[in-house]
Amino acid sequence: MRIHHDQLEVRTHGKGLYEITDEVQSKIDSSGVQAGTVTVFVQHTSCSVVIMENADPTARRDLEEFFERLVPEHADYFTHDAEGGDDMPSHIRMVLTRSSETVPIFDGKMQLGTWQGIFVFEHRRAAHRRNILITMVGQ
Amino acid sequence: MRIHHDQLEVRTHGKGLYEITDEVQSKIDSSGVQAGTVTVFVQHTSCSVVIMENADPTARRDLEEFFERLVPEHADYFTHDAEGGDDMPSHIRMVLTRSSETVPIFDGKMQLGTWQGIFVFEHRRAAHRRNILITMVGQ
Amino acid sequence: MRIHHDQLEVRTHGKGLYEITDEVQSKIDSSGVQAGTVTVFVQHTSCSVVIMENADPTARRDLEEFFERLVPEHADYFTHDAEGGDDMPSHIRMVLTRSSETVPIFDGKMQLGTWQGIFVFEHRRAAHRRNILITMVGQ
Repeated sequence: MRIHHDQLEVRTHGKGLYEITDEVQSKIDSSGVQAGTVTVFVQHTSCSVVIMENADPTARRDLEEFFERLVPEHADYFTHDAEGGDDMPSHIRMVLTRSSETVPIFDGKMQLGTWQGIFVFEHRRAAHRRNILITMVGQ
Repeated sequence: MRIHHDQLEVRTHGKGLYEITDEVQSKIDSSGVQAGTVTVFVQHTSCSVVIMENADPTARRDLEEFFERLVPEHADYFTHDAEGGDDMPSHIRMVLTRSSETVPIFDGKMQLGTWQGIFVFEHRRAAHRRNILITMVGQ
Repeated sequence: MRIHHDQLEVRTHGKGLYEITDEVQSKIDSSGVQAGTVTVFVQHTSCSVVIMENADPTARRDLEEFFERLVPEHADYFTHDAEGGDDMPSHIRMVLTRSSETVPIFDGKMQLGTWQGIFVFEHRRAAHRRNILITMVGQ
């Protein structure tokens, strides 16, 4: 049993989903872990890590539109808006989704289902560099 | 320290919560793990794994009704509807909830609180077979 | 590789976010774990554990207000209300957020980002004692 820490930098350019499935698998390959778990953790409070349907781009667009409507920019009761209208919604969207995902590893592979991909869900309009920590626990 | 992988198949027959607490504990019993963690992971993007109040069925019904209203079928802006009106809402409900839960194990038992149960939260109308991966990390 | 179990009791006095970042780090210090993961798990179905922006109190107030509006007390379709108007909303808010967070540990420290803090998100009006399990997996 060992712990392997690694990390990814993901450059985002506006709101939306950015797939990182292959990059995470590549880190598992480098670690040599054959059986265990991988935790993918984002060190930010204005984007998320989520597992989402990765086949049909329309599913991702509909998801993004849903969040635009559920947590609108410039709600009249927001007071935390120093960084603009997308500031407070970004924190709320993060709390409504996830800061990390943990996935089983077997035979050296993440055991995602057929349609599952891992994504950074960016909630800010501006370009950002996002730090993603990849932690493998296993053997 | 060891890794134990196991799995469950859960047959669902329409939207709603299906408790799997006893089945997960049974997998821990089989593994012999006395101290560690268990991660319960669903390999699908149209159902979730969630911890929920397991005593009063009305709590589950109200939760299901809340999600029907929060993420309605046939929203006019959905474009991902090849599989019907419950297709896109199922992905959104999954993102709003969880693909996995991780629970501590102590004395060979999941350390759930008195009212906590682990459930598959099915978001599709049709019957499905759901694959749930159970990973124990411990000793 | 070792498993360390510990716990915290958090006394809450009404709805809102209660930061426990320092208390969790203190448990890691006591464990001696230098590299691994920590899972922070709440044994209740009417409060959550979430990572949230910990610098600006207005961000937390706006988040709380968002949840008051998204899951209002006394919705006319709620039937699970034996414990009052904040009973059913507390379960829904828990399902919409998280029962646990898992964070990497490196150099003996939780690897939270600059603005990330760990919070108990209390969803009930009355005072409560909340049991939080802290599980370190590592070396």
